[in-house]
Amino acid sequence: MTGRLPQASAYARAGVDIVAGERAVDLIKPAVRSTWGGLAAAGRGDGPRVLGDLGAFSGLVALGNAYTDPVLVSSTDGVGTKLKVAIALDRHDTIGRDLVAHCVDDILTSGAQPLFFLDYVAMGKLVPERLASIVEGIAAECRANGCALVGGETAEMTDVYAADDYDIAGFIVGIVERDRIVDGSRIAAGDLVWGLESSGLHTNGYTLARKVLADFPLEDGYPGLAGTVGEALLATHRSYLPAMRPLLAEGIVRGMAHITGGGFEGNIPRMLPGGLAVELQWGAWRVPSIFDLIQREGRIEFAEMTRVFNLGLGWVFVTSDADAEMVRALTPDALQVGRVTEDDGEGARVRLLGAP
Amino acid sequence: MTGRLPQASAYARAGVDIVAGERAVDLIKPAVRSTWGGLAAAGRGDGPRVLGDLGAFSGLVALGNAYTDPVLVSSTDGVGTKLKVAIALDRHDTIGRDLVAHCVDDILTSGAQPLFFLDYVAMGKLVPERLASIVEGIAAECRANGCALVGGETAEMTDVYAADDYDIAGFIVGIVERDRIVDGSRIAAGDLVWGLESSGLHTNGYTLARKVLADFPLEDGYPGLAGTVGEALLATHRSYLPAMRPLLAEGIVRGMAHITGGGFEGNIPRMLPGGLAVELQWGAWRVPSIFDLIQREGRIEFAEMTRVFNLGLGWVFVTSDADAEMVRALTPDALQVGRVTEDDGEGARVRLLGAP
Repeated sequence: MTGRLPQASAYARAGVDIVAGERAVDLIKPAVRSTWGGLAAAGRGDGPRVLGDLGAFSGLVALGNAYTDPVLVSSTDGVGTKLKVAIALDRHDTIGRDLVAHCVDDILTSGAQPLFFLDYVAMGKLVPERLASIVEGIAAECRANGCALVGGETAEMTDVYAADDYDIAGFIVGIVERDRIVDGSRIAAGDLVWGLESSGLHTNGYTLARKVLADFPLEDGYPGLAGTVGEALLATHRSYLPAMRPLLAEGIVRGMAHITGGGFEGNIPRMLPGGLAVELQWGAWRVPSIFDLIQREGRIEFAEMTRVFNLGLGWVFVTSDADAEMVRALTPDALQVGRVTEDDGEGARVRLLGAP
Repeated sequence: MTGRLPQASAYARAGVDIVAGERAVDLIKPAVRSTWGGLAAAGRGDGPRVLGDLGAFSGLVALGNAYTDPVLVSSTDGVGTKLKVAIALDRHDTIGRDLVAHCVDDILTSGAQPLFFLDYVAMGKLVPERLASIVEGIAAECRANGCALVGGETAEMTDVYAADDYDIAGFIVGIVERDRIVDGSRIAAGDLVWGLESSGLHTNGYTLARKVLADFPLEDGYPGLAGTVGEALLATHRSYLPAMRPLLAEGIVRGMAHITGGGFEGNIPRMLPGGLAVELQWGAWRVPSIFDLIQREGRIEFAEMTRVFNLGLGWVFVTSDADAEMVRALTPDALQVGRVTEDDGEGARVRLLGAP
């Protein structure tokens, strides 16, 4: 892992704890290595695999010869102030899952399968067990998505972060054959819009949600929630790769949008060719109660809610009408949520029919 | 650029300034695009190139067919508390150069040429002009190294970072033909150790340096410095790619080490096969005056200095004795700084001959 260990030995007196760094590396090694096997399984024939070992300056992944015209698809993300919820609840084993799943979903919009991941963790104080929890979450979600964790950097920055604070960023590289890239160009008016339900806020809207819920006890329940409000806020970002993989293999997906910051209007148009719009049918998917709580506590207008949150619809994709049967057979949890229409040029490109 | 723009529109009241985000994107677009042309030049024949455009969920780079058995080499890094020097001096156009150069050097140790880069910037308050300065620095160093800037994330996190504070992380992916990977395995006792001089502290040792110099005015000079102490501390990380490229093309480089955190002992052994050590001749390279100042002000022992700082030697590489003439011809600023020896197993694997 590049720089995972701040090797300097004279740092303790200036606030960089080398012994803690070394213990952290020992703690995370097994988790990191556990991700390397899945990569080969993801490749066909002589597919990609991890070379080298921990401790080198960089992570090496051989592409192999299984690809004809490979395109590398990359993305970087953080988890925003969802971190503050994790810190408040002192639960650090899920935030890494959020980070990886968000990145996996971002490159999935192009049709890419994950290859490898690197993480950056900056902490006010390097607590080895906390870092290990974070990295174990990263490794678990990497394994679940067939992605190799090949590098990471841990920085201890006592005068940037409060002692208990930290920030994390992730970086993913995936791969897709050039003729299998999904870019929305085949989308046409009349196509079906499908949705996959989110697991909650994912990693967006936490600055607003936390402000609204500042005086609401995280350990309390709320009607419709299975657990506490804190647990609902910390629910991990869903990876849509398992649900989409069979559809992508069939080549029937014409466009995909990951509903992140900006909500429906901010993300769905990113997959649409010019001149087209989308009508979504409100009620076609379930809105988790946590959004109801946020809206009520913050007295937020519905239109605002749709621009900040995914409101239960974390993933949208488009197929032709003719492929509806195949979608239902291959991805039973896909919901038909709307239609592609002509854009009348007079307002939003996403219209929410039947909304409150 | 993935997530460069927090698209939500209802965020202003919760501390996320969307208008500032949009203005920042407009400011940085030209810098980002300016990096995309260099990539094609780096590839041979039908080499790699950037596909797609800003605003998609991810960055796309087609590999082309110029590689026979490609290995992707990746790394992630931050710049540590060098950020605090940039913030104190209110100069934000160089820290991005540091970030890219550090990453370029990390993957160069394997013999890799840069392909693409992504950045993560988290700020207490999103000041568009400051973000633009940072990203322009990133783009400038990407251009200098033939690397495409294909993605970035900007997070405004008012309750993690102080208003003027920020953190940055970078992610790089490079490429090398499998049979051209430099891994140190051909290094033998008697080989020559060469050095390339650093431009200063690069990005390591700033927590210690800043503590030691806490009461030293950054605008003051010091004997031997061309400018102020602040300027010396902010001197940008050197990319060793231009100096090493002709030697790598000849295939004569047996091992390389980037002298980062951990100094000589922490980094040089990373390129060595077991059973070998390195003798460096103190005095074979110039030690910049800034290290003298840090050592004197902090009353730091010399041995400690060698474990924290590069002391003017930012890059080390190994060739056979027989290739010395070629090194001198192709890379005139390479200095012969030592020899590879057998490891006697009784102490450090890097011995500094003639040290004070």
